[in-house]
Amino acid sequence: MTYCVGMVIDDGFVMMSDTRTNSGVDNISVFSKMFRWSNPGERIIALMTAGNLATTQAVISKLEQRDREPAGRRNALLELPTMFQVAAEAGRLLRETVRETQDGNGQQGKGRFTASMIVGGQIAGMEPRLFLIYPEGNFIEANIDTPFFQIGETKYGRPILLRGYDRTMGFADAAKLLMVSFDSTLRANLSVGLPLDLLMVRRDEYEPLHECRIEHGDPYFTAVSSGWSGALLDAFHSLPGYPFPAEDSKGNTHNFGIPKQ
Amino acid sequence: MTYCVGMVIDDGFVMMSDTRTNSGVDNISVFSKMFRWSNPGERIIALMTAGNLATTQAVISKLEQRDREPAGRRNALLELPTMFQVAAEAGRLLRETVRETQDGNGQQGKGRFTASMIVGGQIAGMEPRLFLIYPEGNFIEANIDTPFFQIGETKYGRPILLRGYDRTMGFADAAKLLMVSFDSTLRANLSVGLPLDLLMVRRDEYEPLHECRIEHGDPYFTAVSSGWSGALLDAFHSLPGYPFPAEDSKGNTHNFGIPKQ
Repeated sequence: MTYCVGMVIDDGFVMMSDTRTNSGVDNISVFSKMFRWSNPGERIIALMTAGNLATTQAVISKLEQRDREPAGRRNALLELPTMFQVAAEAGRLLRETVRETQDGNGQQGKGRFTASMIVGGQIAGMEPRLFLIYPEGNFIEANIDTPFFQIGETKYGRPILLRGYDRTMGFADAAKLLMVSFDSTLRANLSVGLPLDLLMVRRDEYEPLHECRIEHGDPYFTAVSSGWSGALLDAFHSLPGYPFPAEDSKGNTHNFGIPKQ
Repeated sequence: MTYCVGMVIDDGFVMMSDTRTNSGVDNISVFSKMFRWSNPGERIIALMTAGNLATTQAVISKLEQRDREPAGRRNALLELPTMFQVAAEAGRLLRETVRETQDGNGQQGKGRFTASMIVGGQIAGMEPRLFLIYPEGNFIEANIDTPFFQIGETKYGRPILLRGYDRTMGFADAAKLLMVSFDSTLRANLSVGLPLDLLMVRRDEYEPLHECRIEHGDPYFTAVSSGWSGALLDAFHSLPGYPFPAEDSKGNTHNFGIPKQ
């Protein structure tokens, strides 16, 4: 499994991904799922992947034309004029790769080779943009109503994103929010694991503001993880207990379900 | 979809279920998914269901022998000597019902008719017990390490259960914890919906301590929902922001993924 989040804030965008890949619970490895290219002063583009590792690695290799001699390679990500075209090209290569593998394996392989991606970036003269690319190669773009995307194991970490996100938040708070969301996911799903990759990009800077790997034992992540447990319990205890024994809001008690014997 | 949680605490057990059923997002209905039988002074048994509604209703009807004339009916749940046998009988009827429908619909129907159940209860002279029954009819029992079970849309509401649960908590806190967990789920998945059914059973009492339906606009649920948002944000802001720009724990910055261009 995998967990990746891409998030737009007023100041730019932030991305975080885990690094665990697994084929069964007895075969786990560490692979980065975050890739970043930049042409300082002109553009920065980052891509995160979830799904079949052979598929996603093939897409990255195709984007960079690694099937050619180094001297003959061009990188579409650094040449396409708009982020929309970047997303479309990544989607096209993803669909092509999934289909090739599926066709070569017949119907029984259907679905096993799929992947999805989050692409974020900014090209000079345009706004930062964030896309979610489906295995079919089509994609959607984040907007003011839905300013972040998740791929992989999205559910455990979603409630805190829904409540904590604020587009005016700074990078320090955005990274904190992502770490809380990742911590909730890590605790619940063994197939999402440390280390984590973090990338922050400030708008109009076209190079990483901050880029690092959060390793096992990272003091900030450890502090957030344990601090969040304590703060969450404090929050829980600050709410009033259920007023029981009590009647419901209509002053009745109910026998739901089937009648009593 | 569905969300149900059954939880054992030192004082007894608590169950909560939503009531939304859906066949597509354009066909939703309200059905109770919680059923309760008691023989006051001797036993109380409650059962919650998730999955195919025709399957779960059939299992309940079979448990009550509704295929017979009322005078000839016996209720196995009120007669079997142990909770283990109650769980086994419910599991047997679930497996039988799933198989009958699958066999009648060929392979293409496989998986569509499945369901799972949580059964909790206490019979005089024995401890309260809680079981999770799989579609295959086998089951597991809660223990001191895993004292609660979820069925249906389990992920959104799981992080707070993992952090908030404490077996020494009273019924008022247990109901509060369940409401927070349900609120997180309701916000993220449209197919889980109000009203909610709540049942509390104190050990050795063999009848409900409290049993009610939480309707839309219930003042306590509304207070928990809005209070939790505020408390969660306070908790979030109480944690230190990510110390950026910063080096990582090893004093390095990383270029992860593929090399820079």
